[in-house]
Amino acid sequence: MGQLMENLEGGVTAPIGFRATGVSCGLKAGGYKDFGIVVSEVPCVLAAAFTSNKIKAAPVLLDMERAQNLISAIVVNSANANCLTGEQGEKDAREMVDLVEEKLELEAGQAMVASTGIIGKPLNMSRIRYGIEKIANAVRAENNWENFSHAIMTTDTRMKNVAFEFELNGKKVHLGVTAKGSGMIKPDLNVLHATMLVFISTDVAIEKKLLQAALEKAIELSFNRISVDNDTSTNDSVFLLSNGQAENEPIRDSKSKEYDLFKEALIQICQKMGKLIVKDGEGATKLVYIRVIHALTVSDAEKIARVIADSFLVKTAIFGNSPNWGRIMGALGYSKTKFDPQKVKLMINELLIFENGEVNRQNESKASAEMIPNEVNITVDLGLGHQEFFVWTSDLTYDYVKINAHYMS
Amino acid sequence: MGQLMENLEGGVTAPIGFRATGVSCGLKAGGYKDFGIVVSEVPCVLAAAFTSNKIKAAPVLLDMERAQNLISAIVVNSANANCLTGEQGEKDAREMVDLVEEKLELEAGQAMVASTGIIGKPLNMSRIRYGIEKIANAVRAENNWENFSHAIMTTDTRMKNVAFEFELNGKKVHLGVTAKGSGMIKPDLNVLHATMLVFISTDVAIEKKLLQAALEKAIELSFNRISVDNDTSTNDSVFLLSNGQAENEPIRDSKSKEYDLFKEALIQICQKMGKLIVKDGEGATKLVYIRVIHALTVSDAEKIARVIADSFLVKTAIFGNSPNWGRIMGALGYSKTKFDPQKVKLMINELLIFENGEVNRQNESKASAEMIPNEVNITVDLGLGHQEFFVWTSDLTYDYVKINAHYMS
Repeated sequence: MGQLMENLEGGVTAPIGFRATGVSCGLKAGGYKDFGIVVSEVPCVLAAAFTSNKIKAAPVLLDMERAQNLISAIVVNSANANCLTGEQGEKDAREMVDLVEEKLELEAGQAMVASTGIIGKPLNMSRIRYGIEKIANAVRAENNWENFSHAIMTTDTRMKNVAFEFELNGKKVHLGVTAKGSGMIKPDLNVLHATMLVFISTDVAIEKKLLQAALEKAIELSFNRISVDNDTSTNDSVFLLSNGQAENEPIRDSKSKEYDLFKEALIQICQKMGKLIVKDGEGATKLVYIRVIHALTVSDAEKIARVIADSFLVKTAIFGNSPNWGRIMGALGYSKTKFDPQKVKLMINELLIFENGEVNRQNESKASAEMIPNEVNITVDLGLGHQEFFVWTSDLTYDYVKINAHYMS
Repeated sequence: MGQLMENLEGGVTAPIGFRATGVSCGLKAGGYKDFGIVVSEVPCVLAAAFTSNKIKAAPVLLDMERAQNLISAIVVNSANANCLTGEQGEKDAREMVDLVEEKLELEAGQAMVASTGIIGKPLNMSRIRYGIEKIANAVRAENNWENFSHAIMTTDTRMKNVAFEFELNGKKVHLGVTAKGSGMIKPDLNVLHATMLVFISTDVAIEKKLLQAALEKAIELSFNRISVDNDTSTNDSVFLLSNGQAENEPIRDSKSKEYDLFKEALIQICQKMGKLIVKDGEGATKLVYIRVIHALTVSDAEKIARVIADSFLVKTAIFGNSPNWGRIMGALGYSKTKFDPQKVKLMINELLIFENGEVNRQNESKASAEMIPNEVNITVDLGLGHQEFFVWTSDLTYDYVKINAHYMS
């Protein structure tokens, strides 16, 4: 890496030429903001990734049709996922983009839509129509990333924004991201999944093919490495809009230094956002980094990292600040991978607590203290090969149960 | 089926010639019973299945070595799993069976051992030795299935016993089972898994090969269909002892009516016990029967039943009495199976709540009431083929988190 990146405020609005805001149109009770929009002054090249869940919400299906278009605006509603809503749901999604294009005077096909919230309830279209009218006016009058951040939240407890400024060939360029997502987060092996809506913008000029390749690599190393629960949502979407307003020499060569720099910055911003999403996982009190090293194959390392991250027992132990290496070893045992218990070393942060087939008693007694901070690293060293994998996960808490026992999503 | 089976008390002691009891030897604090034994007056033919977790506790490894022996006694301690305890753990397990054989005057190799509890702590062998002395005397003086049931419990809240009497060729014969197991319960695709110790006894005379085949079939339809959490234990064991004391004509033909009757009774007793284990799952308030029908393949039906049963979101919704069909459909979506959302029908108990790609609003409003009893049936009809699969699971509750955030197992 080695490049200097400056952190900025503003999330998705930080790059040149992007605006966003959020309003309330009555989908959420109590007047909370529930309707947002991101707009670029000039049409953008798009890269995107959508849920691999076979059941896809209507807005996802519509956006997938438009993936080759130039895109100027993405409208977002929370409180209703517009999923499993039949033909009416598809009509409603289409009406939303049509209205946005009309109100913002865009060409046909330049708007996209994202929805998050309850599954299986028809959209209240009179409120949505009111929302589009309202937000089209609002986004002309104001550029407010905080309003946008609030409008897209469901069970999220915090706004999630990251933005960087860095240099490409002497030009200052920008990447920004605003996202929502806290429960129903289980990445998959190929492209991402989660009740996660991620809006990334950049003013870097770059060819569509390279933009998509960079996004897929970044997702593989970020949103595809996070796990809050083991569910995969029907609405997950990651959008990356590039409007070229930084006026850099457009990136066209995948072997160029500029492409590497851009890709590296994109990976970093996605990893930062991925961690924010896990930290704000439903009920989560801890961010846990699970790293499996010295495996024979990447596939083994990945399987092990994921069974540990998905274990109900490991996740509850972490909530209890319990350095329960026995449960970690138990999960390793049922991971269906190649390892030799005698060669396994287990570390909690820097503390070696298991090796040579036995616990290190002295370090075990110190390990509880290591569990108390809200970030914990677990390292499993298989001592066999040269491959590794990591994931980020959260703990399983009373509040996870509380949030999900009653929320109809 | 059609055969009459009478329910008896006594669990594993119900068949002729079996005795059991439990004592306290100080492994559990507070004087709770923690040491149990099952004894047959005559040596038994054994069938058994052990965890497929690659990390196996010392007692499991020892029992696997003895699987071809005639067995007269199984000694059990709770509070310590004797797992990941290195060479000392193996020596300790061996000393336990040696001492049992000595005190009960058995031939070498006729005793087995099972352990359940904390992983990674050395057994307190002075207490174990005291326990063996005490229980060898106790089991001569008394035959007490309740003491045995209590001695093997860890986080279990209830004793788990089932026993049947039925007829084979005019002879009254018996099957009995006593088990423990509540958390760390995730069956696997082949043989079973769970922190589950199951002791089955029968006085039916039957060839070892047929006994093992019947047990494997019964496990496939019972313990292999239950899921409390998604973890697979290092200590799971199912023992089936046959002492032939019913004096029936020994079963030697896998095509005989007697073998069918015996196998059917064994399946029924294992299913009854499987449901008791799920009902007593850590923190569980409900037993949920998930059935997938009209699938193209059994493998698809099984994958779907299991992703629904393992979904954190479905399990918390059930705890909240929420008929959250959207989460069930979401899980179906990421199950990586063949289905057509338009053909899927979803039923909660007898109530059809989803068909033709949409919710049935009228029935949806009645569905919450269906969720309130402590047994709920969920049926997913794929409308494609002729295959089916079922699993039993429990809900995910505050108490699950409470029990597991602090228990060091």
